[in-house]
Amino acid sequence: MGGPRRATGEVPPRMKLIVATLDLLRRSGLSGAGINQVVDASQAPKGSVYHYFPGGKEQLVTEALHEADRIIGRNLERTFQAPAPLGRKVHRLFTETAAWLEANKFMKGCPVAAVTLDLDENTRALRETCESILDRFVNLIAAGLENVPSRERRAVAQLIFATFEGGLVLSRAHGSTAPLLESGAVLATVLEARFTSTRRGNR
Amino acid sequence: MGGPRRATGEVPPRMKLIVATLDLLRRSGLSGAGINQVVDASQAPKGSVYHYFPGGKEQLVTEALHEADRIIGRNLERTFQAPAPLGRKVHRLFTETAAWLEANKFMKGCPVAAVTLDLDENTRALRETCESILDRFVNLIAAGLENVPSRERRAVAQLIFATFEGGLVLSRAHGSTAPLLESGAVLATVLEARFTSTRRGNR
Repeated sequence: MGGPRRATGEVPPRMKLIVATLDLLRRSGLSGAGINQVVDASQAPKGSVYHYFPGGKEQLVTEALHEADRIIGRNLERTFQAPAPLGRKVHRLFTETAAWLEANKFMKGCPVAAVTLDLDENTRALRETCESILDRFVNLIAAGLENVPSRERRAVAQLIFATFEGGLVLSRAHGSTAPLLESGAVLATVLEARFTSTRRGNR
Repeated sequence: MGGPRRATGEVPPRMKLIVATLDLLRRSGLSGAGINQVVDASQAPKGSVYHYFPGGKEQLVTEALHEADRIIGRNLERTFQAPAPLGRKVHRLFTETAAWLEANKFMKGCPVAAVTLDLDENTRALRETCESILDRFVNLIAAGLENVPSRERRAVAQLIFATFEGGLVLSRAHGSTAPLLESGAVLATVLEARFTSTRRGNR
């Protein structure tokens, strides 16, 4: 997507705009991702925004959220499809996220959560985009919960993902990895205790 | 705060502005709480904003967050100070929040989380306000975890609060109470199983 890379290896302008928008959404939600800010951050010519995104800010934000879907989805797949005990998977999700947050000086978060909390009555299409992306994330986690009885998988995946999103908010506000790491550690322990002692196994 | 109520029972203009700002922050974060939107929503005269809040939007948002601190803090205290088993307290937090979200047509969330995800490098003072409020919420929960060994209380409270914040985001995006109710139910079960079977008791 974003068209083929040029022979020089330069990122095409359309993709530059998407990447800049995604970065701004991670930093400060919809309020930070105005057209002017995207143009400044991407160093793309201002006219190119409406050329590539005739739908303006809403289209640009939608495409940036789809890019986030791919990136975050890939990470969740890698973590939860790996052959590892449940507690290990949960632990990995939280420690890797904490390291990412710290590397970004606690200035970035989940772009889908940030947009969700910024929506109002006039942005129904964006809400649906957020909904379907968050739903896919929960499903990717659920698919990796082999030790959890199948009828409980969805709820457990929701718990893991809710803790992940909330932990990101707390860690960001505190400028510290502690909330993510501590809540992740307790969650890994209690889930492991609950679902490896059961004998209901893989169904 | 906000000055005494007038004899007529009318809300003083200062408080009207704070209440309108808080409502806008719950709905769409910093992006939705511009001075013009606050004036429209509060029906206060425009000049009154800078009269009561010479610091402008940042001061208004800060006072709205302090008002949220009081309201949410009171609810957390009521829930976690009540004499009830750990699982019952967690269950109550999530079911009451789900009912509140539904009553508000899934258009409102936690104003402190919404602001946290909207902050950028230029809003350090607001980040510190969010940090201290979220910290107090976690402490209020921790104070009600009598069955959890004291050295684990803070981490368990963080887990409960992170799940609460993340569950609010998911339920809002889905326009459904299910993510909050389901993740809250699993959390209540696993915490109850973990901490009522231990004999380490009340210290």
